[in-house]
Amino acid sequence: MEAYIHKVHYYETDKMGIVHHSNYIRWMEEARVAYLDEAGAGFAGMEARGVLSPVIAVDCRYLRPCRFDDRIRITVRITEFRGVRLRVSYEMFNETSGELAATGSSDHCFTDSEGRLILLRKHCPDIDAALRAAVTP
Amino acid sequence: MEAYIHKVHYYETDKMGIVHHSNYIRWMEEARVAYLDEAGAGFAGMEARGVLSPVIAVDCRYLRPCRFDDRIRITVRITEFRGVRLRVSYEMFNETSGELAATGSSDHCFTDSEGRLILLRKHCPDIDAALRAAVTP
Amino acid sequence: MEAYIHKVHYYETDKMGIVHHSNYIRWMEEARVAYLDEAGAGFAGMEARGVLSPVIAVDCRYLRPCRFDDRIRITVRITEFRGVRLRVSYEMFNETSGELAATGSSDHCFTDSEGRLILLRKHCPDIDAALRAAVTP
Amino acid sequence: MEAYIHKVHYYETDKMGIVHHSNYIRWMEEARVAYLDEAGAGFAGMEARGVLSPVIAVDCRYLRPCRFDDRIRITVRITEFRGVRLRVSYEMFNETSGELAATGSSDHCFTDSEGRLILLRKHCPDIDAALRAAVTP
Repeated sequence: MEAYIHKVHYYETDKMGIVHHSNYIRWMEEARVAYLDEAGAGFAGMEARGVLSPVIAVDCRYLRPCRFDDRIRITVRITEFRGVRLRVSYEMFNETSGELAATGSSDHCFTDSEGRLILLRKHCPDIDAALRAAVTP
Repeated sequence: MEAYIHKVHYYETDKMGIVHHSNYIRWMEEARVAYLDEAGAGFAGMEARGVLSPVIAVDCRYLRPCRFDDRIRITVRITEFRGVRLRVSYEMFNETSGELAATGSSDHCFTDSEGRLILLRKHCPDIDAALRAAVTP
Repeated sequence: MEAYIHKVHYYETDKMGIVHHSNYIRWMEEARVAYLDEAGAGFAGMEARGVLSPVIAVDCRYLRPCRFDDRIRITVRITEFRGVRLRVSYEMFNETSGELAATGSSDHCFTDSEGRLILLRKHCPDIDAALRAAVTP
Repeated sequence: MEAYIHKVHYYETDKMGIVHHSNYIRWMEEARVAYLDEAGAGFAGMEARGVLSPVIAVDCRYLRPCRFDDRIRITVRITEFRGVRLRVSYEMFNETSGELAATGSSDHCFTDSEGRLILLRKHCPDIDAALRAAVTP
């Protein structure tokens, strides 16, 4: 699976002259959406079947700052999924500077449109299978 | 009606050291929400009755830059409403620098949850009346 | 010159289920940055020479809503530049829905790092020439 | 010290109808800025003396969703500072729903304008002392 590329936008910088830290959380989502799509577990398909996948935890470690116009290659891995909680891990590599910029992870659960926890295996067995197959701890 | 105050956040600045221009559009929304609430035409109430109020146009003139921690006083006026299109105008005054920072306006229509145009007078006569009463050209 | 493509991110949607209107202003910047780069009048080069290009006005007309994962093709034109004020115009076409989503424009001036207006012809004659050559009213 | 209040903005919601998770990271910054100001260790004062305080790590646990117009009370504590790394912890309580919405933390270091790590005690002894005094593990 190809890595996701994010080009840094001007509006993502702050007065320190570097990317504001909150944007990395958004980049993780961009890369996750693309990754899950390719893995056969896309958001759009899930939401069409009434299944939501809210974020229950997120963390990010900032190693080297990113700057306007830098090209960031984001690698996504599913590091845990046994039916209830999905854990996704990220490496954000700055191709412009040649440095690892940040690492992070996000945890997700699956709910119906009322916010009640569901077993993905029951509502979307194909997506459950795709996620299990994609786990690389 | 009291003016709305927005304190500039660090994450709203960009690498020029000033507020990124896209944030003023968001400030206009913040001030509009507070204003319409007070005027008896709040978003929450409308949406509870299935009425949405999408933005159909927006413009902003940037006169003097705003900086981190500046205190912005936003004055809102309804400058046009005859039943279909709502026009709201804004003055954003920077209390920290003592300068008028920006002016802007936004146009809105009213739709049902399917996106079909509706007459506010039919679905929410009280809000229609409140908006008409608030017009100050 | 190729059009700029923006894929709609999840975090750009709002509770109406459509893209929040403030994001179109950011898309215009994304497309402008790419366009000016190709035209030989890129931000990075200008800022390296101490020249900033703040936005002095912006407007946008929203014609049809954009949704998560839609593919937006943004066409950029320089519609006015005679040495002081740069006007850029945008068409945002939703390739997913096959509809024109929005049109907009932005006005820019050129300043030194202290915010003083400058004549681009004096400080960056090459960029001044590139912009003049790119005007298509 | 008073807790920081954040009123949820419409533009902070996403198509799930709840606040997008990236915004909590921004709320933490808003509350941190206000807290450090009151504690005599404000950003503005530090930056005026050439000292930056980049974020080196952040995490957030999302317990209950927040919605448009909810009133969020954010409590800030400095949980660690022994001269180099500052750790700040946050509780985000939703006053509208009466539920704890999220908890989080952020780690910071201190650098000069070139990005080199500095000892706060040397450059800003007053801020160093204020931070040490504020630690409540």
